[in-house]
Amino acid sequence: MTERVKDTCLDQIFRESRTHNAWLDKDVPDALLHELVDLVKLGPTSANCSPARILFVKSQAAKDKLKPHLSEGNRDKTMKAPVCAIIGYDLDFYEHLPKLFPHTDARSWFAGNEQKIFDTAFRNGTLQGAYLIVGARALGLDCGPMSGFDNKGVDRDFFAGTNVKSNFLCNLGYGDGAKLLPRSPRFAFDEMARIL
Amino acid sequence: MTERVKDTCLDQIFRESRTHNAWLDKDVPDALLHELVDLVKLGPTSANCSPARILFVKSQAAKDKLKPHLSEGNRDKTMKAPVCAIIGYDLDFYEHLPKLFPHTDARSWFAGNEQKIFDTAFRNGTLQGAYLIVGARALGLDCGPMSGFDNKGVDRDFFAGTNVKSNFLCNLGYGDGAKLLPRSPRFAFDEMARIL
Repeated sequence: MTERVKDTCLDQIFRESRTHNAWLDKDVPDALLHELVDLVKLGPTSANCSPARILFVKSQAAKDKLKPHLSEGNRDKTMKAPVCAIIGYDLDFYEHLPKLFPHTDARSWFAGNEQKIFDTAFRNGTLQGAYLIVGARALGLDCGPMSGFDNKGVDRDFFAGTNVKSNFLCNLGYGDGAKLLPRSPRFAFDEMARIL
Repeated sequence: MTERVKDTCLDQIFRESRTHNAWLDKDVPDALLHELVDLVKLGPTSANCSPARILFVKSQAAKDKLKPHLSEGNRDKTMKAPVCAIIGYDLDFYEHLPKLFPHTDARSWFAGNEQKIFDTAFRNGTLQGAYLIVGARALGLDCGPMSGFDNKGVDRDFFAGTNVKSNFLCNLGYGDGAKLLPRSPRFAFDEMARIL
């Protein structure tokens, strides 16, 4: 049985962290991205299916390839972010279950069932995307997650020859806090939850 | 610019936390569930759309209602968990955008576009489900997330008269660490990520 983490940690990963649109000119080292993936992959997925596939767009050449697929409002800020993570999900994830969930034939739960494959890949790939957001914040990075882009174009240019589909994007770096707007309103407890 | 959180916090939310199947006989107070929702709702969603709806199944009557919808492997452990959270997503989420994203007409981005409504509700509702897992761990709770249940049955018995659809379940409580099995294998960095 564990105690709660310190309030400074809750503040950093939830209470005071914000979605950033403006970035300081400060590099995100590759070693930190490796450390981030080492956190993300430990988060729970159903049958440990781990469908998320992550491309960290960091070089100018990779950014140039991403740029035309971004919605206008996401273009400039993403070009200025040190890194943009493309979070995708692999519809072939179940082929890896003999390795990831070795104690039973979990592959057979999915093979041939397209709806279940999609639901599982999208749900669990998105869970892993959230672990990336929270994990990045815990490592001292700021995040700018985005849905506004041409998914089909990104799939064609970044995931050709695979069955990976893009899910969402997340800029990563050190945000310029001076450029933040006030936080948008949130629901009260009763508007989103109930104890039965 | 923030520093990384302490390693004890990273350990608690990612490195040492595990999916639990056996629960200590220890209550989860309602006040802690309120505090959990106060964390979950701060996590980012696109256009602050906040589609997750959460039912905390805690009373015996509510558990009895949930029981027949659980897959056999999830039944007993869920009945013994102090709380089972039903995480759903509201396909009518965009009706709340005038409140949640008041500075523009975001409702019109969704109304009438069923595919975009589904994608946005499922993606962002799942992100919020992951915030619930991580937030619960940060508050000292253990989690047991599950996909094995009859979604349509749960929707009928718990979300009748709404446009909320069940996404996944998550048992919450204080896990019995003595009953844990070894962690399943994870991918190496190169199997799930690349820096471009």
